[in-house]
Amino acid sequence: MTAYSCMSTAELEREYTQVLEKYNHCKELGLNLNMARGKPAKAQLDLVSDILNVLQTPDDCFDGDIDSRNYGELAGLPSARAYWADVLDCKASQIFVGGAASLNMMCDIVSRAFTHGLLHSERPWCREEKVKFLCPSPGYDRHFQIGQFYGAELITIPMLSTGPDMDMIEEYVKDPQVKMIWVVPKYSNPDGIIFSDETVKRFANLKPAAPDFAIIWDNAYCIHEFEGEYVPFPDIISLCREAGRPDMVFEFASTSKITFPGSGISCLASSVENIAYMTKLMGIQMISYNKINQLRHVRYLKDKANTLELMKRHAAILAPKFEMVTSILDREIKALEFANWVKPKGGYFISFNTMPGTAKRTLALCKEAGLTMTTAGATFPYGIDPNDSNIRIAPSLPPLNELEAAMNIFCTCLKLSVLEKLLA
Amino acid sequence: MTAYSCMSTAELEREYTQVLEKYNHCKELGLNLNMARGKPAKAQLDLVSDILNVLQTPDDCFDGDIDSRNYGELAGLPSARAYWADVLDCKASQIFVGGAASLNMMCDIVSRAFTHGLLHSERPWCREEKVKFLCPSPGYDRHFQIGQFYGAELITIPMLSTGPDMDMIEEYVKDPQVKMIWVVPKYSNPDGIIFSDETVKRFANLKPAAPDFAIIWDNAYCIHEFEGEYVPFPDIISLCREAGRPDMVFEFASTSKITFPGSGISCLASSVENIAYMTKLMGIQMISYNKINQLRHVRYLKDKANTLELMKRHAAILAPKFEMVTSILDREIKALEFANWVKPKGGYFISFNTMPGTAKRTLALCKEAGLTMTTAGATFPYGIDPNDSNIRIAPSLPPLNELEAAMNIFCTCLKLSVLEKLLA
Repeated sequence: MTAYSCMSTAELEREYTQVLEKYNHCKELGLNLNMARGKPAKAQLDLVSDILNVLQTPDDCFDGDIDSRNYGELAGLPSARAYWADVLDCKASQIFVGGAASLNMMCDIVSRAFTHGLLHSERPWCREEKVKFLCPSPGYDRHFQIGQFYGAELITIPMLSTGPDMDMIEEYVKDPQVKMIWVVPKYSNPDGIIFSDETVKRFANLKPAAPDFAIIWDNAYCIHEFEGEYVPFPDIISLCREAGRPDMVFEFASTSKITFPGSGISCLASSVENIAYMTKLMGIQMISYNKINQLRHVRYLKDKANTLELMKRHAAILAPKFEMVTSILDREIKALEFANWVKPKGGYFISFNTMPGTAKRTLALCKEAGLTMTTAGATFPYGIDPNDSNIRIAPSLPPLNELEAAMNIFCTCLKLSVLEKLLA
Repeated sequence: MTAYSCMSTAELEREYTQVLEKYNHCKELGLNLNMARGKPAKAQLDLVSDILNVLQTPDDCFDGDIDSRNYGELAGLPSARAYWADVLDCKASQIFVGGAASLNMMCDIVSRAFTHGLLHSERPWCREEKVKFLCPSPGYDRHFQIGQFYGAELITIPMLSTGPDMDMIEEYVKDPQVKMIWVVPKYSNPDGIIFSDETVKRFANLKPAAPDFAIIWDNAYCIHEFEGEYVPFPDIISLCREAGRPDMVFEFASTSKITFPGSGISCLASSVENIAYMTKLMGIQMISYNKINQLRHVRYLKDKANTLELMKRHAAILAPKFEMVTSILDREIKALEFANWVKPKGGYFISFNTMPGTAKRTLALCKEAGLTMTTAGATFPYGIDPNDSNIRIAPSLPPLNELEAAMNIFCTCLKLSVLEKLLA
């Protein structure tokens, strides 16, 4: 194969004709494939379905003296708080266990920050002239959407191989209107980057002008290796405390990709003072979260060591999918030299950068051929990728045979859109 | 027994000495009893614990083609929407099925109203000069707290035997700053009143000045009879549509007192347009609610008819408790003529009105003797009962023997505080 940039116009035209023919063939298959979201596959759900049976009798539902079937324990069952403290390497008193969605708690925090303020706010954020959120990008569209929903100005921060550009962040936080930053510190969505120790340390040592500046530390993939051994991560809560800003960070995790997406349990980890403040605010909207589900998870997952064993069984299902995606990309796209990507060792995504100006067109072609991908631009604030280049590949949901078909369509559409542009 | 008002000072003093002696005896028992909240008893939780076992295998988790174990179906599983439509006598398209707490959805609606506005809002409520909520009282403290939390001015509306004073409400809604009213239309908390058909009709026919005026129709006890047959209730959503304001009402219900408090499922019922609008807003904070728990409930509860059968078994546990409370009150308090109460036929509370100016003192005495009741004043906006008279009795949690002990303490404290006042 020759790089497209080295081809003559005649060669490009020949290639175009061949790729177009292949594309038309794809369309005729009338497939309906989906790689839009980081949804676990049915095999993964089956893997953990024994959790359905761990609580069977009234006696099973007691966590010590506490009947998980009745109201109470707003901050979570003691055993569930201890479980998350084990996973995140912090203290149970620093944990608030929520419902099925950590995203909901993130949104609650932003919502309350705007209407009431955080612990160190001088006023509710809605009374500020302007509020700015820092958004390392490519990033998670749902993070950006929450900021946009509440009218924050979203500022794009580039991602480096060590995590977000910390020089830029340290500069931006001198602006008191900068109130929040959203990050996925381990296997970042979509790049799959693990923040370096240096990056984490610089986060903890940020000296923002805003007294209520908050780091949303979305540790969604904290134990989600699919290749190699578990990679430990530093306890950001201790680091922030040691650096003198103990209330600056709100860490989140959930079992969405450990047990059942949307029916798991989530947690917020932060300083004891923040947990007390958030518990007070949560008490307005809730009597208590679903503690039966909390107990079901504690009984099934037991502790971090046992959960890591389970994650290896998830990995056995996920790894071949990531392997297939990258090997097809290596075979079909690499030598054409118009794109780059990195194969991650954990998380749920591959971040793919195609030739600038062709991502949208590629995904439109995919759609027409029956393949739904994450919308182009979704990985940037306001849904606008300035280079129209980044595409998030989510290989987890389809079984291997469908994934192969989907990747063949994807590669064909990539080539076609690049050729269209080169020949335009 | 003689009414206290007919006693001479000497008689009152003699009575006081006797009651004080009894009170001191109560204190010596060192009891620890709780009638503060409408918590179901352990026997009720045991009654429904078979729900833990209705989903056991992966195959069990499918609702038609939908795998309840994965992300999706933000507005709820089709079968769960159909279940609630059956219970509330509306259409499945008018139902949004949420998590365990209907209170959380109420709070979400108020929160979004303040930051973004409702469907017909001219601007977010936080941009209004003032926002007023109408609060029929005595009412539910958590309703009032949400309004207070968001800075709404809370206006007390008296409760009549037919429901809230509709003359007053019709007058108040002419004020465009009046944006919301909170009601429990069946077995109201705490009065246990079923709104009359006339009252419901007048609600549906309200012509508020605010285009985005909303009725929070918290149908928490819609099928919660403990005495006599199930009492049907009108479909407020149809009535509002027929009256020309289809988007004015948000109806709520949950299984908190059908299956497990805090681990059940909740629903919002409203116009299709409101459901679409709220689903869009909810989509910012959630991917989807716990659908496994939704399916578990549908499989266990099946339909309205079957759920009504289950409610009869709850009633068999609850009825003797209400019977004990009212018979002790009849025996100990009635002839003294300083208090009044009505025995309801459903719901979770008895609303007790003691001699004005003695409710707080009564409950302080209770507390000292080891009995925790709902805080005095809690049933009024801002936690302030202007007459210091209303006390919410919640007899559901204690077993019968504890309830008897609790009621004996309560009656002693009632008498003591009244005698203190009469002799002051």
